[in-house]
Amino acid sequence: MDDKSEQDLNRRHAAKMAKKKAAREKILATKTIEKGLLIVHTGKGKGKSTAAIGLAIRCIGNGMKVGIVQFVKGAWKTGERKILEEYSDLCVVKAMGEGFSWETQDRQRDLAAARSAWAVATKMMTDKSFDIIILDELNIVLRYKNLPLQEILETIKNKRAMLHVVITGRNAADELIEIADIVTEMTQIKHPFRDGVKAQRGIEF
Amino acid sequence: MDDKSEQDLNRRHAAKMAKKKAAREKILATKTIEKGLLIVHTGKGKGKSTAAIGLAIRCIGNGMKVGIVQFVKGAWKTGERKILEEYSDLCVVKAMGEGFSWETQDRQRDLAAARSAWAVATKMMTDKSFDIIILDELNIVLRYKNLPLQEILETIKNKRAMLHVVITGRNAADELIEIADIVTEMTQIKHPFRDGVKAQRGIEF
Repeated sequence: MDDKSEQDLNRRHAAKMAKKKAAREKILATKTIEKGLLIVHTGKGKGKSTAAIGLAIRCIGNGMKVGIVQFVKGAWKTGERKILEEYSDLCVVKAMGEGFSWETQDRQRDLAAARSAWAVATKMMTDKSFDIIILDELNIVLRYKNLPLQEILETIKNKRAMLHVVITGRNAADELIEIADIVTEMTQIKHPFRDGVKAQRGIEF
Repeated sequence: MDDKSEQDLNRRHAAKMAKKKAAREKILATKTIEKGLLIVHTGKGKGKSTAAIGLAIRCIGNGMKVGIVQFVKGAWKTGERKILEEYSDLCVVKAMGEGFSWETQDRQRDLAAARSAWAVATKMMTDKSFDIIILDELNIVLRYKNLPLQEILETIKNKRAMLHVVITGRNAADELIEIADIVTEMTQIKHPFRDGVKAQRGIEF
């Protein structure tokens, strides 16, 4: 590219970006509502719980208090658990539930575990010291009908106005998506398990 | 449900789950390869950088050393930055790049910033003390052609065998997806900006 066309490109770029900035600012000015958000991470891809950990860290860094209820035991790994435990004044992790249902192979035990986990979750949701509650893998529990969907939806709909709630797990119920503010579907495009690669430290655990 | 059919359901559940467990174990036994993974978080939805933060925390908790290069200045927020800085022995964050291109409105400055950020990234990739390198928003830089795709692909293809590399940003190049091990597309199903809700502490920053 010669100097003249390069300069021309630079000028056009600057004009285009100035226009883009003005458009963005106009849109942002209309965003004035502050409220506790209901956030859902679903889909078959990776990153649902990992992004919830990222949110927890962001909140802790902001001095906000985070409550985490794990509906499936062992779903969060030693790596993140170790760090979160160092911030126990701002982060309460309750590893409830049993292992995955193919581990327990005991439906009654799964039902009882889901019920205790939900009791902990509702207690956290009414405790005003918490700014954000993460209900990890709640979608799985609902999917297996180990908790009654309507009861859970009612409680979430009636949460404190400024409380953020994050719900993770594949197969989120349509009714949950309906009442959510932010829903992200993690779609798996490629996964190494298909190629004989095993779960690795730092990535999977 | 009467007691008999409840017991029946429990029995059938146990049998089904035992079968599922056996099938899983058989598959896992074939997964024996250990290698550094190339992980891509792309798509228009939320959670791309947030899940990368989650991975960084998981790795730090495992005592692994994490390098983070931010190709777009300000993309990572004060919340997570504060926590990551507390682990400076295991986490090096280089906030390179300029702001988003609609902020700088200066193509030559963007090009120079992308080049310096890439120089830092390649240096980290050859430094054997690092176990995982996160190249945050590199996809955006590539999308705007502020770095030459072929050169970047070559360097990544030739990375150390055990080094994990995570690349985030929407619009990942097809050629990058081609060589990646794990690709997750974050799809936006619902976003509150549409409803006048503003960016909030702990969630967006």
